[in-house]
Amino acid sequence: MWILVVYDISENEKRNKVAKELLRLGLSRIQRSAFVGDIDSQRYKDLVRICSKLVDGKDDVLHIIPLGLRDWERRVVIGGEGNG
Amino acid sequence: MWILVVYDISENEKRNKVAKELLRLGLSRIQRSAFVGDIDSQRYKDLVRICSKLVDGKDDVLHIIPLGLRDWERRVVIGGEGNG
Repeated sequence: MWILVVYDISENEKRNKVAKELLRLGLSRIQRSAFVGDIDSQRYKDLVRICSKLVDGKDDVLHIIPLGLRDWERRVVIGGEGNG
Repeated sequence: MWILVVYDISENEKRNKVAKELLRLGLSRIQRSAFVGDIDSQRYKDLVRICSKLVDGKDDVLHIIPLGLRDWERRVVIGGEGNG
């Protein structure tokens, strides 16, 4: 399934750790705090488990949003020198 | 159409301006730099036009991603004290 992950994590160390885990699970970074990718159900479970452990600050939040591939292909990117 | 908007904008003033415009267009804030909402095609055009004007920094990037309502309802939120 295609998913988008976006987060707000205030602590640097924790934020970097989440980013590293998302990359390790095969997601691609589209912004500093936004990742997208196609993962299977086992990796999806891992993702939820790992993120639930890491995201625990009072003001921290992380969204995992399923994404239709067709929707993703219809995205509009502004700025970013054409990457993403 | 349902859309998700996520951005990385380094300059505070510009970032606040984008947030203000997104709220004005009827989107809801789900994180500091992520908004979601159901907008019609005219507002969508306004959104793209306004964001194209505001997002111009070298490292700034903004994604507008169409979202199936069913996908949005299947989101997982971790942290954030249950909001979003």
